[in-house]
Amino acid sequence: MPTESPTFAPMSQRPLILISNDDGITSPGIGHLIDCMKEIGEVIVVAPDKPQSAMGHAITINEPIRMTKVDLHHGVEAWQTSGTPVDCVKLAIDKLLPRKPDLMVSGINHGSNSSINVIYSGTMSAAVEASIDGMKAIGFSLCDYSWEADFQPAMSWIKKIALATLNNELPYGTLLNVNIPKGDIKGIKICRQAVARWKEEFEERVDPFGRNYYWMTGKFVNMDHGTDTDVWALENNFISIVPTMFDLTDHGRIGTVNNWNLHE
Amino acid sequence: MPTESPTFAPMSQRPLILISNDDGITSPGIGHLIDCMKEIGEVIVVAPDKPQSAMGHAITINEPIRMTKVDLHHGVEAWQTSGTPVDCVKLAIDKLLPRKPDLMVSGINHGSNSSINVIYSGTMSAAVEASIDGMKAIGFSLCDYSWEADFQPAMSWIKKIALATLNNELPYGTLLNVNIPKGDIKGIKICRQAVARWKEEFEERVDPFGRNYYWMTGKFVNMDHGTDTDVWALENNFISIVPTMFDLTDHGRIGTVNNWNLHE
Repeated sequence: MPTESPTFAPMSQRPLILISNDDGITSPGIGHLIDCMKEIGEVIVVAPDKPQSAMGHAITINEPIRMTKVDLHHGVEAWQTSGTPVDCVKLAIDKLLPRKPDLMVSGINHGSNSSINVIYSGTMSAAVEASIDGMKAIGFSLCDYSWEADFQPAMSWIKKIALATLNNELPYGTLLNVNIPKGDIKGIKICRQAVARWKEEFEERVDPFGRNYYWMTGKFVNMDHGTDTDVWALENNFISIVPTMFDLTDHGRIGTVNNWNLHE
Repeated sequence: MPTESPTFAPMSQRPLILISNDDGITSPGIGHLIDCMKEIGEVIVVAPDKPQSAMGHAITINEPIRMTKVDLHHGVEAWQTSGTPVDCVKLAIDKLLPRKPDLMVSGINHGSNSSINVIYSGTMSAAVEASIDGMKAIGFSLCDYSWEADFQPAMSWIKKIALATLNNELPYGTLLNVNIPKGDIKGIKICRQAVARWKEEFEERVDPFGRNYYWMTGKFVNMDHGTDTDVWALENNFISIVPTMFDLTDHGRIGTVNNWNLHE
């Protein structure tokens, strides 16, 4: 077999992996993800310089963005930006990446991004942005909001899922939303997003000057009793993987709205 | 016919309509939408106190939110908040609305929210949030970024679409993304979201202290040659209506990822 065989790719041909998150570049979650991805390929990190949870797919268009190279002591190239998670991915694409990455991973988020949380999540939005650009992309979240969360039980599963994503076909338009239960892990379920929502409960307070202000709180309401959902999988100690897309068209309802005869 | 017939509903039974946007409460677009919706029902406005374009589905969880009643001189109840478009809808639900609105409308956005723009748009995210809460919801956008855009040709169409949405069934999980071409309008097409993306082009500058900063710019790239897309409709002077959903599951790929045999 010739030495240039792709089976024995040189180091420079190791997979290129872009990493971002929304908890900020100093979060323990991204540190664990960096260490895991270094075992698989060449890593470049571009992440927010502060927590940017719940930023959704926000981008920064009304002010400039700063970007600074930082030493994370993980032995990988790393940059922090003043922007949102989606800004980080866009900056990486335009200014930093030597070629299109073979994989983009986001997280590990401190807290669940299952069900409707996918839509508020900066972690998932960073992965969505990479997917729009044509990268294979995965968002990883651990269902534990604590800064001191124990990521160790998750790590071999994360490596397995990343390798499978590198080694299998995933068509343009699809990425993966991976949520990992806290504690023991029984295995993996491929799921759909549970039908759920947050019931808002704003806490009203009065500042020292007599003016009202509000803190957003809420209760998670699962309206879905299916056993094929991400919420079910997580409640039963399985990792949930939801194939996720950014085509928001409700194709099944095009006919419904056509029947309203608005074109008449 | 008795006077209590539902055909002659008293004023208190007129449809309740919630209005928000992302360009801010003082934008001409929301002013036109308020005037139009007043002809249909009782209106309550809750909108950002400043431009919040491209905020996506961001919510404010790390700082408190202010909310102030304002007089817009449109004869309707109106509140401005320091939060994002999604925050506005959540505050309206928890603190302001006397009952679930019959309709939520967002906009009129100054600029297109067709194709992939739906995912960055604060205007559409406000409508998505209302839809998650169970309201019928529509995002309206005019394909003209100018603050002095001419909304007049759009107004009768917007009224027609709002009335049709009130008078027809729309199942939970589906809302409408309505984009209106600049200038002459030939009619309405019910469409799918075109496959498109933005190619990032960050402009790098140096501040007076020698440090780099970046302005996000980009080029819109339409990769879709279909004639059933929103981009096609708008280029051909039709209003595009895309039935839009917040279930991001790529149901067709659950089988694909199952075949990776990750559960083994």
